[in-house]
Amino acid sequence: MKKILITTIPFGDPVEKPLNLLNDAGIEYVINPFNRKITEDDLKKIIFDFDGLIAGTENISKEIIDLAPKLKIIARVGVGTDGVNLNYAKEKNIKVTYTPDAPGPAIAELTIGFMYSLLRSTHIANLKIRQGKWNRSIGRSFSDMTIGVIGAGRVGSRVIDLISKIGCKKLLVSDIYPNESLKEKYGFEWASKEKVFKDSDIITFHVPLTADARGMVKKNELLSMKKDAFIINTARGGIIDEDDLYNVMQSGHIAGVAIDVFNEEPYSGPLINIDRCLLTPHLGSASRECRAKMELESVQEIIRFFNNEKLLSPVPEAEYILQKQQT
Amino acid sequence: MKKILITTIPFGDPVEKPLNLLNDAGIEYVINPFNRKITEDDLKKIIFDFDGLIAGTENISKEIIDLAPKLKIIARVGVGTDGVNLNYAKEKNIKVTYTPDAPGPAIAELTIGFMYSLLRSTHIANLKIRQGKWNRSIGRSFSDMTIGVIGAGRVGSRVIDLISKIGCKKLLVSDIYPNESLKEKYGFEWASKEKVFKDSDIITFHVPLTADARGMVKKNELLSMKKDAFIINTARGGIIDEDDLYNVMQSGHIAGVAIDVFNEEPYSGPLINIDRCLLTPHLGSASRECRAKMELESVQEIIRFFNNEKLLSPVPEAEYILQKQQT
Repeated sequence: MKKILITTIPFGDPVEKPLNLLNDAGIEYVINPFNRKITEDDLKKIIFDFDGLIAGTENISKEIIDLAPKLKIIARVGVGTDGVNLNYAKEKNIKVTYTPDAPGPAIAELTIGFMYSLLRSTHIANLKIRQGKWNRSIGRSFSDMTIGVIGAGRVGSRVIDLISKIGCKKLLVSDIYPNESLKEKYGFEWASKEKVFKDSDIITFHVPLTADARGMVKKNELLSMKKDAFIINTARGGIIDEDDLYNVMQSGHIAGVAIDVFNEEPYSGPLINIDRCLLTPHLGSASRECRAKMELESVQEIIRFFNNEKLLSPVPEAEYILQKQQT
Repeated sequence: MKKILITTIPFGDPVEKPLNLLNDAGIEYVINPFNRKITEDDLKKIIFDFDGLIAGTENISKEIIDLAPKLKIIARVGVGTDGVNLNYAKEKNIKVTYTPDAPGPAIAELTIGFMYSLLRSTHIANLKIRQGKWNRSIGRSFSDMTIGVIGAGRVGSRVIDLISKIGCKKLLVSDIYPNESLKEKYGFEWASKEKVFKDSDIITFHVPLTADARGMVKKNELLSMKKDAFIINTARGGIIDEDDLYNVMQSGHIAGVAIDVFNEEPYSGPLINIDRCLLTPHLGSASRECRAKMELESVQEIIRFFNNEKLLSPVPEAEYILQKQQT
């Protein structure tokens, strides 16, 4: 009997169908017994026992793969594969799949919600009112904003779609591979990331954590932004330097940020001491509908694999090459 | 020289134009010297000295009017006139104007932002992460929601417009005077308020505080809603019974609420002890663009009045009749 480990939690709750499918397929499963975001040390202790892995964003390093003699498939719930050592997995004949399309709508909705929260400082008001303070701060209008989107891929294009429906003053988009049909559809303006940083009232990131993206925003980039700019990161923690962000915000620059992703998760760093930081625990894909879709897709890949059927969403070769170039 | 009192704060910040216009017109002004929401007692102490009033949502009762022998005009910044004793003002030959169209866009944006926050519990996550808790709660998708709008007037119709642009599963609208052209434009479903309460995942209120609206939502109405429903009130505090809301939420019913308006403001009641309440200090019209427009419109009415010009937005006769019927 095949036995898999599901590290990402919650899983199968409230929609049980993915677990039912595993039961029906005769695949034994263990859901993250540590009941918190799994660490490399946790994984090292138990990975030896499993034929397959349904994984979250945790690191699956060479060392972990070496401790997993039975492991044949890693099905990532979600889209980023920066945590998985793809080329070493391939060397060990371990297949890696992902669920590239499922998270987009949920991440895009979280991002738009962040824009509205930042514009009106509702997250700050909600903290203050609990401290007995009634601060009627004057916010900004969505329709009056220049919004800059960094990265117009699966998620970024959905964010662009929602922004266009709602309507803002000006939409700037930066992407290293400009997609002209997208521009035709939405009529935004292509811009360098330097121009996006400089001219936008709201800047939102939707790029994968490649070597180029890591540390893309440091002190200089933050200071090149408007003093009253808002920044949103629902992509990956490494994109914005957290220490620089803290220092620049402490100096009074940047009106507000909404950060859902961190260098190390769970996050417990100093940004929690700045009220104008809206901080959330990697909720990007955490909607009932989106989770159910991703869980289902990852389980179906696992079942296909053990039935010797063709995989539907193997991580594409380009991501292996990119990772090789970056190491 | 005419002298007016501006009670609503902040005023003329950051857009100074309204104050410049008053200076140019030779009208002396005093901005709320108490630097907090003005009370009836505050007003009683100083109102005797003024020829005009630029007012917020505070009560301007018979007693206050009796203490204001020079008062000839009240220009309300905003739209609700429930705080002003309209008929007594008329008896004393005091004109009352308002700014009916200015607040709509800002209130609608706040409301849509609340929907996104509630759906993903970002306000709760932001509190928890500051307590060292990393709770990845699973939210809901906007596109999967049945949304119920109570009141399809100036603000409600703008909320309907935004919801329609973003797209939800089903839109129910309740109004005592159904506007068929609105329905034609947006294709929603008219429903009784009982049906809206029972069938909606999100319920949002956009009615004036008439006698019918006061206490519209009490224990029975709250319990008729779905256990995991969300409620938004950006209209007036009296609409939802705050004690009943507290008790029903303590019992575990209702997934979350976003409340911007309270029976007594500033609010310091027990809802602050419930994390799933997103609470804000009457921020509905508090956007830079909206405030500037409202402040400008109210100042222009004051100037027109003292120049013996025709007023542009006197409170309509219907509101006087409504208030008379209700007292």
